Amino acid sequence: MPLQPPSTVLISEVGPRDGLQSVAATMPTPHKLAWITALHAAGLREIEVGSFVPAHLLPQMADVAEVVRHALTLPGLTVMALVPNRRGAEAAVQAGVHKLTVPVSASEAHSLANVRKTRAQMLEEMRSIHALRAEHAPHVHLEVGISTAFGCTLQGAVSEHDVVQLAEQLVAAGVDEVGLSDTTGMANPAQVRRLFTQLRNAIGHHSGAAHMHNTRGLGLANCLAAYDSGVRTFDASQGGLGGCPYAPGASGNVVTEDLVFMFEAMGIHTGVNLPRLFEARQALAAGLPGEPLYGMTPEAGLPRGFVATAAASPDHPSTTP
Amino acid sequence: MPLQPPSTVLISEVGPRDGLQSVAATMPTPHKLAWITALHAAGLREIEVGSFVPAHLLPQMADVAEVVRHALTLPGLTVMALVPNRRGAEAAVQAGVHKLTVPVSASEAHSLANVRKTRAQMLEEMRSIHALRAEHAPHVHLEVGISTAFGCTLQGAVSEHDVVQLAEQLVAAGVDEVGLSDTTGMANPAQVRRLFTQLRNAIGHHSGAAHMHNTRGLGLANCLAAYDSGVRTFDASQGGLGGCPYAPGASGNVVTEDLVFMFEAMGIHTGVNLPRLFEARQALAAGLPGEPLYGMTPEAGLPRGFVATAAASPDHPSTTP
Repeated sequence: MPLQPPSTVLISEVGPRDGLQSVAATMPTPHKLAWITALHAAGLREIEVGSFVPAHLLPQMADVAEVVRHALTLPGLTVMALVPNRRGAEAAVQAGVHKLTVPVSASEAHSLANVRKTRAQMLEEMRSIHALRAEHAPHVHLEVGISTAFGCTLQGAVSEHDVVQLAEQLVAAGVDEVGLSDTTGMANPAQVRRLFTQLRNAIGHHSGAAHMHNTRGLGLANCLAAYDSGVRTFDASQGGLGGCPYAPGASGNVVTEDLVFMFEAMGIHTGVNLPRLFEARQALAAGLPGEPLYGMTPEAGLPRGFVATAAASPDHPSTTP
Repeated sequence: MPLQPPSTVLISEVGPRDGLQSVAATMPTPHKLAWITALHAAGLREIEVGSFVPAHLLPQMADVAEVVRHALTLPGLTVMALVPNRRGAEAAVQAGVHKLTVPVSASEAHSLANVRKTRAQMLEEMRSIHALRAEHAPHVHLEVGISTAFGCTLQGAVSEHDVVQLAEQLVAAGVDEVGLSDTTGMANPAQVRRLFTQLRNAIGHHSGAAHMHNTRGLGLANCLAAYDSGVRTFDASQGGLGGCPYAPGASGNVVTEDLVFMFEAMGIHTGVNLPRLFEARQALAAGLPGEPLYGMTPEAGLPRGFVATAAASPDHPSTTP
């Protein structure tokens, strides 16, 4: 028996947004609802369910308000949506989401390519979203994931000083939580430890999630490095769907199944029940027939004699911090 | 610039033995020689080139003496072969290998299934191999990789005490170096840190390589954990060939390409040149047409602006320890 209560991490499932937005097919709404229900049944307690962007730009997200409406019925779930600007934030708040997440690029080149705004303009946008939140929805949580924090395919290296300074400016602009995203799959464990440590030193408890990609196979190693640096929230995508797969066969996001297995095997509570998570994978596959899914643990199955942590069942939530 | 000289690790390539022995096809000898030459040209300085076992048991290894003869012509290469018993060791020493590696199971059930000997009988075999070495080939290095050190699909959990005690007994039997193998892909980073730390406390500088599998996607995370615990030798297999793939799609051994990328990206010297390693992958593919190869880094390519460590070129070997 451990002498100290085991650690707990929050797995933030981004598949219904980051994943579904990245594939060519559009998952029919009933399948989305079934998948999100299955993810919740597996014990996931934060899900990025969609993004509020014009439907002509991302037809896969046209039903986001309906998806949010359904997700809000699932007990204990933090319903998160991505918004690229104030207009999206207005629609998301109107729909009733609990948490907004905004992508802000550390790389000026990526910022212009991704949202057609400079970093300075995005900071201005964040101040505006914060003002909206303060006036109309003070209970809504405001998160930023800093894109290209570990390098950029457009500009190459990204200065660590720039990333930390941007995080400080975002907190000053009213953001609750600033995480770091390895948008391009360039991060390595040494860099992850260095940058998350600097982030925590700079913004303390506003330091947020690790959003790692598996482009070069380092996704779990980078999550382990982030955990070692005190990170306790991890973005992941069921089946590794989405992310920035720059090459055929190279998956993008960290695979939820493998990440949960790693933490549970280490005795770190995720609150996620792995067999039920495998069932949710079936719901995902049913909604996106023919789409390749990644992940080694679902293929290999759980090891003989594998015992999940005490908090693995959503019916028995952990009481440890 | 780093204030201290960067660390160096040894990547021990096991593909020509562990990999080729695990696939149904037999790679023709000229292709084996070309692949090993390409691996050496990429900077690999220890290669497990084959195993000395009866040809009727493993026809893929029937040409091992010829392969060893060729490998011995490659400058600076440590030529290693697997031997399961004294008879194999005699043949390997006769062929002129520099290093013998013997698999000894921590799990009694796996030991009986794998080599039809108990652990006690394998310890006796090691004493006999050590005596052979002392008499006929004192320059030959003697290594054991403890199989099923992190769990066994036959017996389930394996006691950490048993693993460490076995390592001590092996050193007492004359083994130079004892490593730990995650034969069944059951290891997790917390366990890896714990067990390698215990191993080092018990047998000091006799503590050897980490042989990790990627069965559930944790291969690199486990190597990172082993590195953190002071391990500096890592077994890996080009294209992830071999290992114990208990499920379709689940690769076995840690992929050399991804492991080298991880360390080089962290600033840790491997001595391996990644573009040349990708060329060696072509030589492997040419010798095993149709065989699936794993690895994310070869698919994604190196990141823009990627700079390998100073010692990455085999033409400029590192002078740091």
